[in-house]
Order: sequence, then C-alpha cells, then structure tokens
Amino acid sequence: MAMAAVRLPSLSLLRYPSKSLLSCPLSLAPRLRHLRPRASAHISGGGASRCISARSLAKEEVSSSATPSTDRKPSSSYEGSVTPRSVDFNAWYLDVIASAELADYGPVRGTMVIRPYGYAIWEAIQEYLNVKFKETGHSNMYFPQFIPYSFIEKEASHVEGFSPELALVTIGGGKELEEKLVVRPTSETIVNHMFTQWIQSYRDLPLMVNQWANVTRWEMRTKPFVRTLEFLWQEGHTAHATAEEAETEALQMIDVYKKFAYEQAAIPVIAGRKSRAETFAGAARTYTIEAMMGDRKALQAGTSHNLGQNFSRAFGTQFTDENGQRQHVWQTSWAVSTRFVGGIIMTHGDDAGLMLPPRIAPIQVDLLLGFVIVIQSVYEVILINVNIINYQVVIVPIWKTANDKSGVIDAVSSLKDLLLKAGIKVKVDDSEQRTPGWKFNFWEMKGVPLRIEIGPRDVANKSVVVSRRDIPGKPGKDFGISMEPSVLVAHLKSRLDDIQASLLHRAISFRDSNIVDVNSYEELKAVIAQGKWARGPWSASDSEEQKVKEETGATIRCFPFEQPLGKMTCFMTGNPADEVAIFAKSY
Amino acid sequence: MAMAAVRLPSLSLLRYPSKSLLSCPLSLAPRLRHLRPRASAHISGGGASRCISARSLAKEEVSSSATPSTDRKPSSSYEGSVTPRSVDFNAWYLDVIASAELADYGPVRGTMVIRPYGYAIWEAIQEYLNVKFKETGHSNMYFPQFIPYSFIEKEASHVEGFSPELALVTIGGGKELEEKLVVRPTSETIVNHMFTQWIQSYRDLPLMVNQWANVTRWEMRTKPFVRTLEFLWQEGHTAHATAEEAETEALQMIDVYKKFAYEQAAIPVIAGRKSRAETFAGAARTYTIEAMMGDRKALQAGTSHNLGQNFSRAFGTQFTDENGQRQHVWQTSWAVSTRFVGGIIMTHGDDAGLMLPPRIAPIQVDLLLGFVIVIQSVYEVILINVNIINYQVVIVPIWKTANDKSGVIDAVSSLKDLLLKAGIKVKVDDSEQRTPGWKFNFWEMKGVPLRIEIGPRDVANKSVVVSRRDIPGKPGKDFGISMEPSVLVAHLKSRLDDIQASLLHRAISFRDSNIVDVNSYEELKAVIAQGKWARGPWSASDSEEQKVKEETGATIRCFPFEQPLGKMTCFMTGNPADEVAIFAKSY
Repeated sequence: MAMAAVRLPSLSLLRYPSKSLLSCPLSLAPRLRHLRPRASAHISGGGASRCISARSLAKEEVSSSATPSTDRKPSSSYEGSVTPRSVDFNAWYLDVIASAELADYGPVRGTMVIRPYGYAIWEAIQEYLNVKFKETGHSNMYFPQFIPYSFIEKEASHVEGFSPELALVTIGGGKELEEKLVVRPTSETIVNHMFTQWIQSYRDLPLMVNQWANVTRWEMRTKPFVRTLEFLWQEGHTAHATAEEAETEALQMIDVYKKFAYEQAAIPVIAGRKSRAETFAGAARTYTIEAMMGDRKALQAGTSHNLGQNFSRAFGTQFTDENGQRQHVWQTSWAVSTRFVGGIIMTHGDDAGLMLPPRIAPIQVDLLLGFVIVIQSVYEVILINVNIINYQVVIVPIWKTANDKSGVIDAVSSLKDLLLKAGIKVKVDDSEQRTPGWKFNFWEMKGVPLRIEIGPRDVANKSVVVSRRDIPGKPGKDFGISMEPSVLVAHLKSRLDDIQASLLHRAISFRDSNIVDVNSYEELKAVIAQGKWARGPWSASDSEEQKVKEETGATIRCFPFEQPLGKMTCFMTGNPADEVAIFAKSY
Repeated sequence: MAMAAVRLPSLSLLRYPSKSLLSCPLSLAPRLRHLRPRASAHISGGGASRCISARSLAKEEVSSSATPSTDRKPSSSYEGSVTPRSVDFNAWYLDVIASAELADYGPVRGTMVIRPYGYAIWEAIQEYLNVKFKETGHSNMYFPQFIPYSFIEKEASHVEGFSPELALVTIGGGKELEEKLVVRPTSETIVNHMFTQWIQSYRDLPLMVNQWANVTRWEMRTKPFVRTLEFLWQEGHTAHATAEEAETEALQMIDVYKKFAYEQAAIPVIAGRKSRAETFAGAARTYTIEAMMGDRKALQAGTSHNLGQNFSRAFGTQFTDENGQRQHVWQTSWAVSTRFVGGIIMTHGDDAGLMLPPRIAPIQVDLLLGFVIVIQSVYEVILINVNIINYQVVIVPIWKTANDKSGVIDAVSSLKDLLLKAGIKVKVDDSEQRTPGWKFNFWEMKGVPLRIEIGPRDVANKSVVVSRRDIPGKPGKDFGISMEPSVLVAHLKSRLDDIQASLLHRAISFRDSNIVDVNSYEELKAVIAQGKWARGPWSASDSEEQKVKEETGATIRCFPFEQPLGKMTCFMTGNPADEVAIFAKSY
C-alpha cells in the first residue's frame, strides 16, 4: 500500500488555478513548512504542488460531483501525500499534521489551532488520565490564569527558569495595571498562595488537586504540538505532611503516565529521574518519561516533580502537625500536555500518514453509549447520532453498478449497527464523490487502525475483507472474514488488540535497537553522532554534563529507574558511578 | 431541621484565638463580604464570629479528636451557618459559596478559584452539554487565546462592545510586542480568521465546532460565578450556506440550553429573543434563556447568537455555492459559562445552604463505572476507588456504644456497595470527629439531596431513615424504609426523581407568581419596584427602552418565544405591538 510516487495535480487546482499556483495563501503545507528549522531548508522544489497536495484534497471535492459513482474508476488516488519520513522527518511530521487535519497555525506566531481530528486525540488522553487521577484520590478544580508578577519572583530558581518565557498583561479595562500580570506558564505559585488559606492542620493533608488548563510560554522555536506558545495540559498539585509521602506521590504519578504511554498510546517510554541541570525550576527532583521518536530524538512526554519544601517555604504554606508544631508542607506537581499528541504522531506514523493505536480512539463515546443504554433505553438512535471522530474501523463499500449498490449499502448499514452495538467506533465512508482507492489512502492518512472492504461478491459470500493499517499491502489483509456477527466482531476485536500490541512491540524493538551502552566519552560521541541514544555510567559534574551538551548536542534525558546491577565506573571521569544515565538529542 | 440560631465559637478559634479574632487574614467569609455591593453594607455586626463561622469548621477538626465518638453527644451542631437568605440575599450567596467550599477569590481582583466541590458542578454541566453538542453534529477543537488586536477592530459593533473589557498582553519573552495581543473575551474573530482557510465550497458547510475554554473580560463589579474577570465556558461556532440554516442552528442550540436548564438543573428558564439594545456585539439576533433567581433578579444563563454575515463580511469568510458564485457564510455562536453554577445556587439554595438537583451530581462517574464494568470486569474495586465528589446520597451512621458500632458500620458498608452498584453516588460519613447532628447540617450545607440515617435500632429492624434535603424536618423523613436491596434502591431512586421534580415545580411556582402582566408604564414601575418581573406588549423605540432602564433599573430580558395570542397595544406608546417583552432587574 505504498503511496503514489507521483503527485497528481489536485482537482482543486483545476478549479482555482491562478490562486493555487500563484500565491497559495491559504494552503497549510507551505505555512507549516516556513516554520521548519533551517536544517530542512534543502528540501525544496515542488512548492506549488505540495501547496495543494498536502491539504486541499481532504476538503476539495472533485469537480464532477454530480457524476454517479458507478461511472468512476477506482484509479484516482488520494493526493494528500506527504514528504517521505526517511527523506525529511520534520517535513514529514508537518505534512502529516496538515494532511490528517490535526492542527493549523494560529494568527499569532507560535500558536496552534487544534483541529477536531487532533483534538479528539487529546480528548482520548484526557479521558483516560482523568479517571486515573480520580482513582488515585485527586479532585479537579480551577485556578485563575493571571498571576501577580511578584508571585513568580518568590521562588528563586522558579523565576530564573520562567522569566524569559513569560507573557505579561499590562493593560486591563483600558488602564495600565499597577502590577503586571503573568499569564500562567505553570501554577505552583498561585497554588501555594491558595494552599496557605486551605491548609491549617495535618488533618487537611494530603491536599490533592488537578486542573485541565491552558498555559503560555513564550517559546522562540515552536513546532505544532511539541512546543507552542500556548498549549493545553493538566497540572496536578499536591501537599503532604511528610517528605516520604510527597516522594511516593511523585513516583506514583510518573507511573500513571508511564502506564498510559505503554498501555494506551503504545509508546515504550523510559521512566527515570532528571539530572540536576534538567530538573524543573523549583523542584527538588523531577521524574520524567522519555519517548524515542521515529527520528530517534527524545521527547520528554510527561514529568512529575517532587517540589520538596521549596514553594512552601517561599509562600509560607504551613500546617500544624500532630504535636502542635508548625511545619512547611511537602509538595508535588505533575503534568502531561498536548505535546503527547506529537509523540503519538512521531512514534507510530509512516509514509502513508498517521497511525493511531486503537485504544487512543476516544473512550468517551463508549461511555456515553453505555450511559444512554442504561438510562434512556434508546440505544440505536443515540448510537447513530453521536458524532464520533476517531474511528477504530472504517468501512468502505465498493460497487460498480446501481444494481450492486443497494445490496452493498444494505450490508454496510447492518454491519455498522452491529459494530456500534459491540462498542467498536466505526465510520462508513459511502460518499459518492470518491473512489474506493482514494478512500483507502485517505483513511490511512487519518491513521484508522482497521478497514473493512465490502463489494458485491463479498455480499454474495457473506464475508468481508479486513485490512490492517499497520501492515501495508496483502500481508495486512484478511480475506473472506464471515459477516456472521459473533465471528466478525470477535475477529475485529482480536485484530484491534493485535494492532495495539504490534505497535508497542515495534516501538520497543526500535527503541532497544537504538540505545547503545557506552563506556567512554568517545563512544558516546560516536553513538550520538549516529543519532542514537547512549547509556552509560555517570557521576560527573554539572559542568561536565554541560560540556557534553555543547560538544554533542545531547543532554541527560534521565537516570532510568531500571538500572544494571553491579559496580560501575563513570565513563567521563573514571570515578565510581551509582547509576547509568541516558544521553540523547531531544525535542 | 432549622439551622442553630446561636453561633457557637468555632474550635479553631480556641486554638488560634489571636489570629482569628484580630485579623482573620485567611478567612473567606469576610473576604467575600468585602466585595458585596454597597446596598448590603448595612448588614454588619458579628464580623469576628462570621469570620470563623462561615468557613473554618469544614476544615478545622475538633481539638479532642482522640476522644472516641461514643463519648460524644449529638448536640454540637455544624457552625458553618450562613446569613439568612431573606435578610441579605447577596450575603447569603457569598456565605453559601464559602461554607460549601464552592469557590474562593484569586489573588488578582475579580478572579475566582473554583474549588473541587464547585468544579464538580461545572463538570456535570460539561458532561451533559458535551454529549448534546456531539449528538447535534458539533466537534470539539481548540483556538488560541491570544488574538491580534487588529482582529477585534474588524467588526464595528464587536470592538465597540468589547474594547472596554479587554486584557492586553504587551510584553512577551521579555520584549515589547509589535502588536498588542488580546486575551480572548470571545472567539468570533479568530474563528473567522481560521474559517476563511477551511471553507472553500458549499461542500465544506455546515462547519460546526465547539471549544471548552477560559475567557477574560475586565469586569469592574465582580461576583463569584456570576461575573468574574476570567471564567470558563463553552463557545460553539458554526458556519452555514444559508440564512435559514443559521437561524435553525441558533434556535436549536438555545433549545439545548433550555432543556438542560429544565431537565437537569431544574431551572425553569424563559427562552426568547433579546431586544436590539441587548443583542450581542456583532450579532444579528441573540436568543437567551433567562432564569429567575431567589431574589427575583434575572440571570442570563445562556445565549445563542445568529451572527448573520456580520463577521463573515468583516473577515471575508466566503464559499463557492452550487452555482459557482462566491457567497459569505451565515454564522452562529452560542455559549454557557460557569455563571450557570451561580444560577443553580441562587435558584435552589436555602438558609441551610446549597441544594443540588439530583441530576447535577456528575454524570461522568456513572459512565466511567459502566466502562470499567464492561472492559475490566473489576466492578467493585473501581467503584470504591473512584473519587466521587458530588453525592446524591450521604449515609450517616449513628451509634453510642462500641458494641453498637460494629453492627452499624457493617450495615453501612453493605448499603454503600449496594447503592454504588445501583449507580447511585453515595458518601458514607463515618468520621469519628463529628456528631451525627453536625454531619446532618454539614451535608445539608453541601446540598446533598438525600440522607440515610442508620442507628442500632434500624440495624435490628433492617430498616433505615431517609431524609430529603428539600423538605426540612419530619415531613421530609421516611421512617422504616426496608434495607431489602430492591426495596431500598427503588425507594431512593424514586425519591431522587421526586426531589428533581419538586425543585423544578417549586421554581416554576416561584417564577410564575413573580411575573406580572402590565398594561401601562405606571404598572411596570410598580411591579419592578416590588422586585418582580413585568411582562407587557412592547413596540417602542430603543431610546424608550433606555428610559425604562434609567428610571426603573429594569431591562428587557427577552421577547419570550411563548407569546399570547391576539392584538396588543404597546404599553409605552399605545401603538400596535406584535409581542410582549419581559422586563426585570438582572445580574
């Protein structure tokens, strides 16, 4: 199922030739490309054709929409092709985002509009994590986004870390403000200000809250999802009576993130502790999950901070302990953001586009259906009305004659009902403007895990063809799968499980084949120069860590929780080392 | 179940007397009160006692926490009492917010921290509406909150309406910005900027999206939930090919809001059209739902705007129609915000505190449980682990001797499992620091619809006492309800339905007894002076509407959709009138 090598001019081009060819003012691909870092500037050529190829076909219909589909041949393919991943990973990434309609640039430089198909991925992340946060005893709430500038200054390393990235409101209601307001880059300061009012005694602890919110960091080099001026995240904030409890909480939450990454997103992250240099501004310890992207760069996909008493001392967040003594609370904070969507794209995507793990299709719809069934008893009606966006299965009906059509459409319609009732998120693409071949490519670009193909012969045989998104061509197809409900549903669920497992397995293999153990700085340099991750014993200083960064571009991603046994020697200094560190270039 | 008339000094006072008595720096009730409008300034006295009464007891525990509860008599009552609603409605409102721990002030004047118990109400609103939006074909997405200032200026009445309320970012990343950025007060401008890029032909229409977001309006007079500098809302934005479709959409969405208000929040809103003067800045027509609060002031609880082509002309949002002609799209936008939480408090609350309609307890938990049952088959474990906040039923066990205790606790524990399995959100308050009487008052303050009381005699009789929150004292109690699972569950569900219906019925009666038909301006003045709503035929000018506002303080809340039949005469001018308008003072 390789993408067409030649990009056909899109049909929208035929309709608005001058606009498309001359200026392409509204085309996304070039807009995305102009923000690519200079390293990829050599990828040029085909500007005008990419200008339309990457975007317009998903929107623009063929000009002959009145023509019945029975006259159409399945030869015209989906033109929303992307730069091959192996040619230019960054260009590929931006093309996939444009072609799969995940996001677009906002009018203010560095901002991003998250389009429905991309937002549905974020909703899937939210729905899973929201349950886990509640199960682990956290309550959602909401803190204001405007923070007095003086708050940021209270914790010394915090202001140092964040002040270069702040957006400041200086005018409100037409007047210059007496004190500038920071648009939150993170909420530890305002959280502590409020915690001082809610925490009196040890009985008020632990205090465990979370908020889903937008945050702003004035980033100079932005990239959709991965680093944007404004992004969406959740930030958990907790206060505890003891250092041990805070440490347990920080570790628990990085474990929640790790499980999500493995089990839902099929991303085999490495969990560990950040080096001092990479620790969050204001934290005592930062735990992280680090994911290897398709270009082998590391993506910090989630962090959990043990804040110690840094903020509680700065803000005076105290409680009276069981002996009547005033103590500062011990705190944590932890966050996952829309960056994770970028991680999913860059872990699983291929030259055909996005590839979504089946479990990332939103959970919510299942839940809602469950609710509707129980409470309203109007199962079918609501099932069909709910506006599902991320599908696990797309059904593409195929017919040539009007005679064939009705049989195929009837079969597709009952299949759809069957799958919805089985809790499978299904889309029927029965539009008459597109050929089956075009639809195959389109839904592959969108990353839908399974495709069911049904033609007249399949209807006659009471069977269907099931194609996996993760295995191109014939090897990924199951022919002659019976339409008998229990057989088909069992087959699809089993295939969805296979795909989920296969994506994780593939990512683990890729990761493991790209992490190399090193025992000298020279070895590290060679490994990093190959674009791989280096793992080696480390007990050197912060300044030596800085030297590695300057000389190789790699940073310590983490000291992984999983450590080799036995005595080790720091590859940099030759001194004894307690642990290995992982070095890599990163986003 | 009247609140204790005498406020006992709180026990926190005994522990930190100097701090509490002298400065009360962290107490919420006085902080809330200092923002009350001057009209209520005559309510003073008892400052120091309210300073502690309204808040601290929910947090502070009794000093003798080591004392076993068997030694405790059920006489000490919950001290988190509030100003009687009839004495000072505004003070009552702020006291309920503080005592039920719904919200708190943020450090920046006019901002609000939404605490977990208040945020759970917002989540219940979100979860219901989110389903309805998807059922009606809308997709969630996210637009950036920073809008170039020039965008706001493009639509003439929009800039006039919003420019006095804008918060402006002028510094980013340490540098003065070339163009000021508006922190979104609403998103029509940026939405249109993006729509121009996504809409080419009629086949791209309708385009129907929604976002859940924070918005900022620099309000001078704020009030928690009702009007805050930053608030949370959803804003739907749609584009259509015809004026008729846009009108249908705007009407559909105000109907979604109306149904939510009636069926979930038990608020009998009046839906109708805004007058020209009260129409949204930039809209052709604004539809509204208007709710009567307990003080008979009107609360605009949701709006839906038919924007016509105002924004599409300002931004050039065009499509090519079926005849190949370029046309401007027809648009709508519609919103409900955290203000609705204030509407729930002010519609149903009483002197004992908050009163929550049973259906406002979050839907999500049911859904999640349903999911967990289906997918993980570990029903009980997860049920108990999920952190439910808004309860439909609270169980208060009562015992005097250690002997009695174990039997009562066992009975309570199996009751809890039973109710959770039946999908009823239940809390067991078995803490030993509080007396049953204190707990009764505390959970009434929190507005939990039903309370189950179980003592040793009830255990022996295999029965419980069930108390309704909405009917004080003995008339609200059902004695001797069998613990037999099917009987008890049926009884509770039936009672929850009764309460839901009763709250709505009571609010309808209150509303209808406070709307008076008027046939002259003199009559209107008299009705408004009584604090009621006036309804009368109206076809007068905008300036006469302005005169009514200046002379009476009342505005046209809406021209209700439900209109009397027959010919009418404008009560102001004596000219023929096509419709009646409703006038009222409002929030």
